[in-house]
Amino acid sequence: MATQFDPPSGTRDFLAAEFETRERAFAVIHAVYSSYGFEPLQTPAFERLDVLLGKYGDDDKLVFKILRRGEHEASGEADLALRYDLTVPLARVAAAYGSQLPTPYKRYALGPVWRADRPGKGRFREFVQCDLDTLGSRSPMADAEVLCAQHDAVSGLGVGEFSIQLNSRKVLAGLLEVFGVPAELGPGVLVSLDKLDKLSPDEVVAELAGRGLPAAAAGEMVATMTAPDATERIRTALTPNELGAAGLDQVDRLLSLASAQIPARRIAFTPRLVRGLSYYTGPIWELAAAGVPGSLGGGGRYDHLIEQLGGPDVPATGASLGIERLLMMLPGSADSPRRRLDVAVTVLGDDLAARSFAAAAAARAAGLRASVYLGSSSKLGRQLKWASDTGARWCLIYGRAEDAAGIVTVRDMDSGVQSAVPVAGLTSHLASLGQAQPPRSAPCP
Amino acid sequence: MATQFDPPSGTRDFLAAEFETRERAFAVIHAVYSSYGFEPLQTPAFERLDVLLGKYGDDDKLVFKILRRGEHEASGEADLALRYDLTVPLARVAAAYGSQLPTPYKRYALGPVWRADRPGKGRFREFVQCDLDTLGSRSPMADAEVLCAQHDAVSGLGVGEFSIQLNSRKVLAGLLEVFGVPAELGPGVLVSLDKLDKLSPDEVVAELAGRGLPAAAAGEMVATMTAPDATERIRTALTPNELGAAGLDQVDRLLSLASAQIPARRIAFTPRLVRGLSYYTGPIWELAAAGVPGSLGGGGRYDHLIEQLGGPDVPATGASLGIERLLMMLPGSADSPRRRLDVAVTVLGDDLAARSFAAAAAARAAGLRASVYLGSSSKLGRQLKWASDTGARWCLIYGRAEDAAGIVTVRDMDSGVQSAVPVAGLTSHLASLGQAQPPRSAPCP
Repeated sequence: MATQFDPPSGTRDFLAAEFETRERAFAVIHAVYSSYGFEPLQTPAFERLDVLLGKYGDDDKLVFKILRRGEHEASGEADLALRYDLTVPLARVAAAYGSQLPTPYKRYALGPVWRADRPGKGRFREFVQCDLDTLGSRSPMADAEVLCAQHDAVSGLGVGEFSIQLNSRKVLAGLLEVFGVPAELGPGVLVSLDKLDKLSPDEVVAELAGRGLPAAAAGEMVATMTAPDATERIRTALTPNELGAAGLDQVDRLLSLASAQIPARRIAFTPRLVRGLSYYTGPIWELAAAGVPGSLGGGGRYDHLIEQLGGPDVPATGASLGIERLLMMLPGSADSPRRRLDVAVTVLGDDLAARSFAAAAAARAAGLRASVYLGSSSKLGRQLKWASDTGARWCLIYGRAEDAAGIVTVRDMDSGVQSAVPVAGLTSHLASLGQAQPPRSAPCP
Repeated sequence: MATQFDPPSGTRDFLAAEFETRERAFAVIHAVYSSYGFEPLQTPAFERLDVLLGKYGDDDKLVFKILRRGEHEASGEADLALRYDLTVPLARVAAAYGSQLPTPYKRYALGPVWRADRPGKGRFREFVQCDLDTLGSRSPMADAEVLCAQHDAVSGLGVGEFSIQLNSRKVLAGLLEVFGVPAELGPGVLVSLDKLDKLSPDEVVAELAGRGLPAAAAGEMVATMTAPDATERIRTALTPNELGAAGLDQVDRLLSLASAQIPARRIAFTPRLVRGLSYYTGPIWELAAAGVPGSLGGGGRYDHLIEQLGGPDVPATGASLGIERLLMMLPGSADSPRRRLDVAVTVLGDDLAARSFAAAAAARAAGLRASVYLGSSSKLGRQLKWASDTGARWCLIYGRAEDAAGIVTVRDMDSGVQSAVPVAGLTSHLASLGQAQPPRSAPCP
């Protein structure tokens, strides 16, 4: 049940464990995208309202608008808005920095966007998008780089097996010509074909007929596209058609280039793949995992969109990861005990506090995470319970006896074995313990 | 001059070089704060309006408010607001998750906040805050941990020498008693004393007198606090005073604990340090660098603030870094040439493209950042110019001659020396080149 202390509807607080799981995933993506020579870009959380509005059609109403301030607040008008995606800011940046950017401009962006959608299971109002785009290149190799980098990122996240469906808008355009679909019905027919993975062939035929396509043409089209040998039948049908042949060539070149990086079992020409977004102009692809509904990401070439969004007239190709969905697929770290500290240090008397604090400093100097006990109990049992709760690997005990003997007792929290270490040798002793430990993954920001 | 393509007033776009400089700094801070056993927390960009309003006094007007949506948009009312700091969200989280959080709850947060302030040089409407706080401990060691961790973070950033001024609110309270300042004048007198580093002693005396303090008392107070041996004189004056003695004890304990981590030259008891924020209840401190106006950060104990902000009634101590100022002090990376790629690969013919693409994949497999040429020129000279522009260390040349001979030409871009490497041995050759190179710092997300 929602309380007054919950974060706003559709948003989340990320406490340590979840934050670190997410950051580790983001670090993988940064490393992969950098390895292809893509550079990072970060834009503000909000843009001027006029930059955003009119860009999302019906979804303009999902933009979070920011009220004007000061004397203008009473007007009830907005002048800024939270970014809705990372593409409109990219178009603005391409226009703003033009020649300061490399040509082509290969950039990735990873950050939150905000949409006033109805929140639901796995659907948030604040969520992270992760985009990879190359602006200013018509080369098929630009498409291949984006596709391979996206593949490597998903592969690197370790979410299990997945597959890539590949097609081209030109294949789809060729299909419409080959099956005699009137130009004005084309967009609607593609919308219906896009449902072939959800509806039965008969349902799609009925929908196509409802759009005005002659029943025979609709039936033949769907039969071809759902046949066991659909791919071969479509190749044969498209080869004599100019658009279709160009589309097949795009697909085959991309398959050939990608073979350097993507195992053949993971990628297949999928003529019925449409992708909903109307702005694609060339190759398109989508990533899916068995048993996971929806896509894990997708991409394609969109040569006119940047200009339509207010940027310069540049060819472009890009890919977007469904990062929130991918994060939900990550093997949970909840089952492995959480370790916040390597070394927990007891404080067994006010007059011993400075020595305990110095012992924690010695542990940090040895590269270990360490903290003293900050509670109010002076009982060793309570403090050992605290040390255990932090997941510490070792506990340093510094009491009267240790003080008198000039030693620190180092307790192995797993085995309970204790050893006496001279104060002067503490840092080097801890350093040797730290090296014997498996390396811990440092959290990335 | 601002254009329609600039980011909104007071916000910034971070292109690759600046983004990476910032992320490296953030990674240092994350590593240091983790080493003390602090855990990360990330909260949403916006909170419900009622969570934020009434928390910032006059500055409530600087909160960016978000317009209600759908049918409620026309009301001109706001229901959400961008977070103004990281402390109010912390109070909400402490209330929301209570027993799920460790006790004490040691957390750090690093992220943007938004304030509708007048933008100016070094003053932004979107800027990063970096907070470190321990909730639920009254131990002086909690203060010492926060102080030392903050010190280590600034030290780790490599911004040069800095110093820490240390005081206690109880020292100030004792001073007010010792100099006979009437209780009702106390807060105003502290505001005036806070100006001793900006105004002359006479000006501060005049201001104190203007507040109603007898001229003799004002003169004696300022003379004591600006004397060459001010610290000793104040210690002597405060020792018989109960509050003052307690304050001195706080300061001395903190100095003693911190000596494990902070070089003595960097930290000093500074009785005239007030810090403007009225919510501090115990030790207070501020970091400054010679020649840099204003502070680099500060902190202190604030035992009642979390409750006042809507959280549970817990003691607390914390520190905040002036991270945007620190980032401006970082040694610029602009003078070192920017390297986006380790390996640039030519594409000297459509039929050779797949081999070039595979060569780039081989370089990535060897742990190097690599990309093929994505432009439209087939001239080697143009492609070498591109390779040079990317800052690549090596260029792989794969033309007709190489194809015929089954080799790749590897060009050292610094020396111009070229060597012929068999295609089959390319990955291992590049791996050996990569190991000979100084390790490059991977960007953190």
